[in-house]
Amino acid sequence: MKHFNLAVFPADGIGPEVIAASQQVLRKLEQLHGGVRFACREFDWSSAYYHKTGAMMPADGLQQLEAGGFDALLMGPVGSPAIPDHITLWGLLLTIRQGFDQYVNLRPMRLLTGVATPLRNPGQHPINMVCIRENSEGEYAGVGGRLHQGKAWEVAIQSIVFTRSATERVMRFAFDYAQQHGHRLVTNVTKSNSMQHNMVFWDEVFQQVAAQYPTVATDQQLVDSMTARMVSQPETVDVFVASNLFGDILSDLGAALTGSMGLAPSANLNPERQYPSLFQAIHGSAFSLVGKNVANPIASIWSVQMMLAFLGETQLAAQLMHAIETVLREQCVRTRDLGGTSSTTEMTKAVCQAL
Amino acid sequence: MKHFNLAVFPADGIGPEVIAASQQVLRKLEQLHGGVRFACREFDWSSAYYHKTGAMMPADGLQQLEAGGFDALLMGPVGSPAIPDHITLWGLLLTIRQGFDQYVNLRPMRLLTGVATPLRNPGQHPINMVCIRENSEGEYAGVGGRLHQGKAWEVAIQSIVFTRSATERVMRFAFDYAQQHGHRLVTNVTKSNSMQHNMVFWDEVFQQVAAQYPTVATDQQLVDSMTARMVSQPETVDVFVASNLFGDILSDLGAALTGSMGLAPSANLNPERQYPSLFQAIHGSAFSLVGKNVANPIASIWSVQMMLAFLGETQLAAQLMHAIETVLREQCVRTRDLGGTSSTTEMTKAVCQAL
Ligand SMILES: CC(C)[C@H](C(=O)O)[C@@H](O)C(=O)O
Ligand SMILES: CC(C)[C@H](C(=O)O)[C@@H](O)C(=O)O
Repeated sequence: MKHFNLAVFPADGIGPEVIAASQQVLRKLEQLHGGVRFACREFDWSSAYYHKTGAMMPADGLQQLEAGGFDALLMGPVGSPAIPDHITLWGLLLTIRQGFDQYVNLRPMRLLTGVATPLRNPGQHPINMVCIRENSEGEYAGVGGRLHQGKAWEVAIQSIVFTRSATERVMRFAFDYAQQHGHRLVTNVTKSNSMQHNMVFWDEVFQQVAAQYPTVATDQQLVDSMTARMVSQPETVDVFVASNLFGDILSDLGAALTGSMGLAPSANLNPERQYPSLFQAIHGSAFSLVGKNVANPIASIWSVQMMLAFLGETQLAAQLMHAIETVLREQCVRTRDLGGTSSTTEMTKAVCQAL
Repeated sequence: MKHFNLAVFPADGIGPEVIAASQQVLRKLEQLHGGVRFACREFDWSSAYYHKTGAMMPADGLQQLEAGGFDALLMGPVGSPAIPDHITLWGLLLTIRQGFDQYVNLRPMRLLTGVATPLRNPGQHPINMVCIRENSEGEYAGVGGRLHQGKAWEVAIQSIVFTRSATERVMRFAFDYAQQHGHRLVTNVTKSNSMQHNMVFWDEVFQQVAAQYPTVATDQQLVDSMTARMVSQPETVDVFVASNLFGDILSDLGAALTGSMGLAPSANLNPERQYPSLFQAIHGSAFSLVGKNVANPIASIWSVQMMLAFLGETQLAAQLMHAIETVLREQCVRTRDLGGTSSTTEMTKAVCQAL
């Protein structure tokens, strides 16, 4: 019997609904495979928790999670219209990413059959991109401050900090990933024409790491024209490696191109498994949809699929991916974001049945 | 007789070709209107100049331009595969933007009739967006450095610097622009959920400036989801104000959505006219197309149109816009990027004839 310990954070907005859907899928997998068990411990750390306690999680939150011996963390979206976003995000998600050294944010962007893309000629454009985003520093290092607050001569500084270790390891991850998954190209997303300190350094490290993978083809694209390339020639984009902010921006664009924010999954990985990794849909908390049973649970369920793959449950992961693909291809059950009228519950049931 | 003094920089790659086209259009306008004259002084500051002299422009380049008493600067793309981009760009374009306090980068993104967008349902999506980009500081402040270069513990820092003056003035420009041009909405592009120093400050300033324009509607969009909104609901985007980097990224996306990088113009403005403003296509130097007479000259010609408007030549500007629209609508003459086979020369001639 394989036993996995999961920490589950329903978090904010539609989080509880899509997380419930994800747990239902886990239950179904347990039923189908006698040999696996997912023990879920729920944490109510969220904006509601903040309203009660004045913090998004207890002061010793990270230690509690470490002590819990979790194999993975499954999280809903974080953020509430009632609290400034930097407080909710730095109070929970960003602190976990940094604290647990989840230095890779892995984001597949694949247009599945049955899903409409906003692009013309989707047939000519098989979209299948993988964003490998640096997730521990860079633009989100959190370093900076404000001087002369409120004065006419106020200055606000946010420092982008790149270290060689963190830059090298995410690039190595990208090349290893490309090799292991049979990808042909790794694109370096840069902006070294205008950002002459951090991005020139980034490009140098990319060149150095690339030299260690002579069989993987590479190219380089400025982040601004990368958006144009993704829209006009998505078929030329394969794996790309990008800084924290650039990966964030490009993966939202990629999610939109592959049909819906309601489909896009992500994995915040600590590849060395010193700390648990975190799996989460990339969409927001969408307070306007709360309690209506209309949110698309696929993004969260697909994140569970990435968790299974990361935990080494290759067969379960393949089976779940197949179920997701079947439901989307058959188009009988479609949530609003996909142009249908099905509920979260119906979509979840369809995935469970397809399993 | 109205007399305008222009400094013209053919610059790199296809620059000389599209700048020649732009000057031809200026000649045509002079012929049609006896009362206006554009005196062009050419500067060879460019990558070729760098190869000869070791610098992109003379050490006293900015002073020379100031002494020249120019009403405007017209520039081709800057950048060459043979020189690192940060050297060419900081050696010329970025130094002029900062030195001449061209603090607004104005970028209209309008899908013209006759031009194909990569989006489906262009009819349902009338794309007409205006990017107002902070152009003097922020992510392109140029502030930063590298420590322990080459060592395993190397750190590279690029500091994003926002000042209250520069932030306020670009936002005021955005609201004034929206009011003067009958726009209904100004969107604040932010990333204050993760960038808690500079972008929280940016949002505060936006709120303060917005309060002074009670008749203009506003909303706020994270830069990552802004890319999704531009692709999935472009009709909801009107004027947006963004930091230097965010505006750079979103305007390339916008250019791709409105059909081609070969169409997109820009104006680097010093609205107070203490210094000359700079007008330039947003596309790159495209060395692979050099000398083939295939580059689309419209982006540069449209930039000339923006120059005419800024110089107060409202009627000439309207006439030139009409000519560009006519040529694109009729589709008889189309360069490669628009799916045709016409040459740069033919496209330029068509615009001159339409005038
Ligand atoms: C919620 C936010 C801080 C986060 C980010 O910017 O990283 C989100 O946009 C994401 O992409 O996971
Ligand atoms: C050439 C480059 C430095 C420039 C920028 O990033 O500002 C360009 O992309 C632009 O948008 O004008």
